[in-house]
Amino acid sequence: MVEMKEWDGFEGRLWKEEINVRQFIQDNYTPYEGDESFLEGPTEATDKLWGALQKLQKEERAKGGVLDMDTKIVSSITSHDAGYIDESLKDLEKVVGLQTDKPLKRAFMPYGGIKMAVQACETYGYEVDPEIKKIFTVYHKTHNTAVFDAYTPEMLKARHNKIMTGLPDTYGRGRIVGDYRRVALYGIDFLIEEKKKDKLKCGSGSMKGEVIRLREEIAEQIRALENMKKMAEIYGFDISEPAKNAKEAIQWIYFGYLAAIKTQNGAAMSVGRVSTFIDIYIERDMKKGILTEKEAQELIDHMTMKFRMVKFARIPSYNELFSGDPVWATLDVAGTGVDGRSMVTKTDYRFLHTLENMGPAPEPNLTVFYSSKLPDNFKRYAAKISITTSSIQYENDDAMKPVWGDDYAICCCVSATQTGKEMQFFGARANLAKCLLYAINGGVDEKTGDQVGPKYRPITSEYLDYDEVMERYDDMMDWLADLYVNTLNLIQYMHDKYYYEAAELALMDTDLKRTFATGIAGFSHVIDSLSAIKYAKVKVIRDENGLAKDYEIEGDFPRYGNDDDRADEIGVWLLGTFMDKIKKHHTYRRSEPTTSILTITSNVVYGKATGSMPDGRKAGEPLSPGANPSYGAEKSGLLASLNSLTKLPYEWALDGISNTQTINPGALGNEDGERVTNLVQVMDGYFDQGAHHLNVNVFGKEKLIDAMEHPEKEEYANFTIRVSGYAVKFIDLTREQQLDVIARTCHDHM
Amino acid sequence: MVEMKEWDGFEGRLWKEEINVRQFIQDNYTPYEGDESFLEGPTEATDKLWGALQKLQKEERAKGGVLDMDTKIVSSITSHDAGYIDESLKDLEKVVGLQTDKPLKRAFMPYGGIKMAVQACETYGYEVDPEIKKIFTVYHKTHNTAVFDAYTPEMLKARHNKIMTGLPDTYGRGRIVGDYRRVALYGIDFLIEEKKKDKLKCGSGSMKGEVIRLREEIAEQIRALENMKKMAEIYGFDISEPAKNAKEAIQWIYFGYLAAIKTQNGAAMSVGRVSTFIDIYIERDMKKGILTEKEAQELIDHMTMKFRMVKFARIPSYNELFSGDPVWATLDVAGTGVDGRSMVTKTDYRFLHTLENMGPAPEPNLTVFYSSKLPDNFKRYAAKISITTSSIQYENDDAMKPVWGDDYAICCCVSATQTGKEMQFFGARANLAKCLLYAINGGVDEKTGDQVGPKYRPITSEYLDYDEVMERYDDMMDWLADLYVNTLNLIQYMHDKYYYEAAELALMDTDLKRTFATGIAGFSHVIDSLSAIKYAKVKVIRDENGLAKDYEIEGDFPRYGNDDDRADEIGVWLLGTFMDKIKKHHTYRRSEPTTSILTITSNVVYGKATGSMPDGRKAGEPLSPGANPSYGAEKSGLLASLNSLTKLPYEWALDGISNTQTINPGALGNEDGERVTNLVQVMDGYFDQGAHHLNVNVFGKEKLIDAMEHPEKEEYANFTIRVSGYAVKFIDLTREQQLDVIARTCHDHM
Repeated sequence: MVEMKEWDGFEGRLWKEEINVRQFIQDNYTPYEGDESFLEGPTEATDKLWGALQKLQKEERAKGGVLDMDTKIVSSITSHDAGYIDESLKDLEKVVGLQTDKPLKRAFMPYGGIKMAVQACETYGYEVDPEIKKIFTVYHKTHNTAVFDAYTPEMLKARHNKIMTGLPDTYGRGRIVGDYRRVALYGIDFLIEEKKKDKLKCGSGSMKGEVIRLREEIAEQIRALENMKKMAEIYGFDISEPAKNAKEAIQWIYFGYLAAIKTQNGAAMSVGRVSTFIDIYIERDMKKGILTEKEAQELIDHMTMKFRMVKFARIPSYNELFSGDPVWATLDVAGTGVDGRSMVTKTDYRFLHTLENMGPAPEPNLTVFYSSKLPDNFKRYAAKISITTSSIQYENDDAMKPVWGDDYAICCCVSATQTGKEMQFFGARANLAKCLLYAINGGVDEKTGDQVGPKYRPITSEYLDYDEVMERYDDMMDWLADLYVNTLNLIQYMHDKYYYEAAELALMDTDLKRTFATGIAGFSHVIDSLSAIKYAKVKVIRDENGLAKDYEIEGDFPRYGNDDDRADEIGVWLLGTFMDKIKKHHTYRRSEPTTSILTITSNVVYGKATGSMPDGRKAGEPLSPGANPSYGAEKSGLLASLNSLTKLPYEWALDGISNTQTINPGALGNEDGERVTNLVQVMDGYFDQGAHHLNVNVFGKEKLIDAMEHPEKEEYANFTIRVSGYAVKFIDLTREQQLDVIARTCHDHM
Repeated sequence: MVEMKEWDGFEGRLWKEEINVRQFIQDNYTPYEGDESFLEGPTEATDKLWGALQKLQKEERAKGGVLDMDTKIVSSITSHDAGYIDESLKDLEKVVGLQTDKPLKRAFMPYGGIKMAVQACETYGYEVDPEIKKIFTVYHKTHNTAVFDAYTPEMLKARHNKIMTGLPDTYGRGRIVGDYRRVALYGIDFLIEEKKKDKLKCGSGSMKGEVIRLREEIAEQIRALENMKKMAEIYGFDISEPAKNAKEAIQWIYFGYLAAIKTQNGAAMSVGRVSTFIDIYIERDMKKGILTEKEAQELIDHMTMKFRMVKFARIPSYNELFSGDPVWATLDVAGTGVDGRSMVTKTDYRFLHTLENMGPAPEPNLTVFYSSKLPDNFKRYAAKISITTSSIQYENDDAMKPVWGDDYAICCCVSATQTGKEMQFFGARANLAKCLLYAINGGVDEKTGDQVGPKYRPITSEYLDYDEVMERYDDMMDWLADLYVNTLNLIQYMHDKYYYEAAELALMDTDLKRTFATGIAGFSHVIDSLSAIKYAKVKVIRDENGLAKDYEIEGDFPRYGNDDDRADEIGVWLLGTFMDKIKKHHTYRRSEPTTSILTITSNVVYGKATGSMPDGRKAGEPLSPGANPSYGAEKSGLLASLNSLTKLPYEWALDGISNTQTINPGALGNEDGERVTNLVQVMDGYFDQGAHHLNVNVFGKEKLIDAMEHPEKEEYANFTIRVSGYAVKFIDLTREQQLDVIARTCHDHM
């Protein structure tokens, strides 16, 4: 058993015998059942720094979304000198470290794809050093080039026709959450020693391909750890040893995270579950009398400020998919332990409180692990913050805990992974709505007329027959699942080869569990279309080539989102069937296949590429996001809509089922206390039934319209809303996306 | 079936239906049974160019072995402008193309390992551009770094203690012979089309790791083919279409080869079997009356001159292993077809004749595929050239043809591969002599005292017991074979990943056979040691730690190399046993394990690292090279020595059994005709018994001693000798290596 002086006052043995942060937390944390009255407002330093940062953010928006870009230095863990929010205020920063040498200056990250990195710069008027361009074209191949080298014509066609969309072949796959707490608890030197031991054991001398790959990966991880020490030195810190106090613990954690975001521009770069861990250090310092509540809150505020600053250089097509410049610096609070204790600590309050101290913000993507068994005080506080800021999402701890234990974290918008023990191969989405249209049209794309799918017989009857459609759909989904899994296998292989996440994986176990995350787009439209075909009459409108282009519905039919089993059961069938088809295939590195029903904001782009559906949705209109019912389908109020969602088994979609709801404040009640009570009640009921996720927005349509028309108003500068799986500043959305948000159902009654 | 105007006058169908150069040759070549009287001397252009080149070679030697080096441009297929032997003579060059923009200027090739590339420059006083150094350290990882990332401590120790030696982990593995004839016969565009078709078929949509890897490799091959066209354009040629005549055919072949040596600095960069192929074009041109014999010979001379110019930047440790700056531009002539016809053409004579027109030279490494059934005239001509130049090696066509067919080529010194259909994973050597010492010392290295092998019980008796030694040796060989194969698996994996031979493999079939070439060093010393233990008495001399350091032999014992079955059978056992142990293991990419008994000049380095042996060889003395008997062991004349070699089954050592012999001219007879007759007779007998290889040197020891003492004499400027598997200019060897050559047996009688 190792003993370190920095661990003085900490309890437990197992986490000293092996790297085991979860055990450290369970052995040492102090649950908190009280209310929020202990919280402190912002310090003067916080106000000054946040003021400086807001000024920079304003400049950034004025410059078209990007303040500054690096065009000469290739980002690496140690590529840049120290940087601060404001040189003149740098002594005020309690937590230091930027991605580059200047605040909001975006780093140059070519490993995912040189073309994209260059395009991102050119979009904002920056020109990349031609020498750097040459290096990553002539000497060093990037992930993107490699993927396209290996794609089959069929994959290219399916991608081009957007039946598979958002694939991480032009950007980093992200979604890998290093256990950044390890840096604080163990220090880098110990972590290096443990990795060296792992390497000694790895493969036991037998050199098959997978052993060789892993051995090389461990070597890269050790290199990354060594570089983290160097990076910290640039800021004047020595992180070779464990953190001695709360301030260091927070700084060490942040350095671990900073190494990740300096080397990877993944779609999601999540922070993980750090609140309970940090709380242990704060409690110890307070007991020693070396930290006040004011100071503790300042540390959390400053750390949070850093997460609000994370930026990547993106290309227009990426921004279309994921609008509002998100990075999914997802940070989780609350939850309960496997022993039944609440894991809510004062620091969980402190993190939510940042939304009050510094106003609402989309990042970090604050996620509450919800359970009706959480302390009432905390549930009410979270609900209150939701109502005032619309910046929080909720996920069902009671559903996730049996699968992932009590130290999981969200690695993106809603997907759980065990911290430090598991990574995900992110795989974007298959458009199952379009797949239904392919089933009807014999594999021909309804928009482009290309033969994309197999040349199966099209449906030629005037009216759609349910059994015939279902048989064709089953075959077409077989094809799509096969193509989709193989495409992802290829992408993940190349990502490992050309853009390996050494910094994140250095802070995780060497023997990892890996999940293979697929996803579904167009979920509600498939359900409603099949329901229309089954319960109403759907007439096919064909063009001169016999291609089904539109549909006329005669009669009424049940729609998903109204707690009507006739429709909802189709959803359950669809999820189960797709997952079964995915599971049949070989998946890269023996990863475990999962799926999700979440589309983020890409529902708009996906919808553009998808023709008219038999449910009445017209060609080009946005798909409904995630697992949400279709726009306008929810006729029976919020609770009925939520009930439909709860029927989808989370076990079948372990990568997450995203549901975004907007509630008019009036629907929740007339005064604050009543609204809080009602929102808590809604969530207790929803999650107790097994639902997975809820984005809570509390505002009316009129506010959205006013913000769209008058973005210059001061009150809208930080107006944040939850979209599918993350939050955005509403005024950062394009008009098209704003209109989409406005078109969504806003519940006026429960 | 494809038809091209350039094929006018060529017979056959199958090679038009598919890429099949072998079939083209069989359908079109003209065997030649006449004598050498048709040959022409050098043209004025040849004399001038060769004169200019010799001047450069002299300057190169005067500058310490390197004339010039690139330190700024990373070599690639298209990296350099056109270069010529002499700008003022460039119109005389019938075959153009240099590795860089200047003759004998060595290219900068960092992909195998940046450290080595830099060290090679620094050794000769050149400094590499720091930016380039940074690119291949920070941005792009090289083969060498990757291998060392994955090595186990055991591998490092075994490598350091030289029980595995010469591993291709610091240099390119080489030994991959592109079918350069394809460029001439089909043109690049057709080859690209065929590769695209292969890619379409590859994997049939299923994306397992090996499919993804191969798809990416094909993409890289297509890229290499496109670059070959660009490279030819730099010299003013369009190689997109097939060659129209002999001059173009030779130029196109050379461009294919040039692409290989611009991108790979493999230990061996062989040319292959091109003579019969080229002859078809020469015959057609002559029939058309557009080419004279003088012009034909000039083309062959100029092509050969180019092969004499191939150079790579090497590091001192490489030069110690492979002395005399060899590149194994091995070029094969003669042989017979599977239909029994001799494949000797006039062009086979023309290639040997270059040794007369331009004097002896180590490169190209001229190899005669020998059979007693070859035309008498040709056998006599080859023997004559051997006697006058000592620049030719012979390999047994009758032994190789059943295994490899009639279109194999030598990919290094002596190893056969089917042209265009097969590649080899080169794997250097295991030192079986040292392994025997480990068996005696319980895995402890006799030189360093390190525990390298497993901690088996050492032998503690005063006198060695044969059965005990054999049992221990069997166990220790098991360990070594396991470690050796795993080490090679790792090296080959990384070579594919970081230093893939796209140019060579672009000119080969996509579905390749792959051999996994292991090798044996110290062969004769193991045989003689075991024979001494069995038939004499061997007393162990131990140091103060009980480590066996030396041996005293009491009595006489049979030695390998005297046609004595008692010793020779031990050799057969050793080869068979080692091969069996190798075969037990998983080999990379399902390659077929083979082994060789050839050490090239590395016998000196290996010997230095090997302690005294029970056969009387003292610590540090060179091992005998390849499958040669130990120095001084051959007491029964040349024929008895050759007979010992013929007992080793070639089928058990498909990578080759190298035998180098030196015959005093007097031993062959008193006048030229008699010597030729006798040498032909010796070779007929040797190869008819199934032996694999023979290096023929014809000179006396006194000549070697005089050349060593008086390297300045004009007659020694091009004095070439055959060492194990290649030829060197004697004066380019270090004194130590010269003394080794002088110590070898020189047969004074048959």
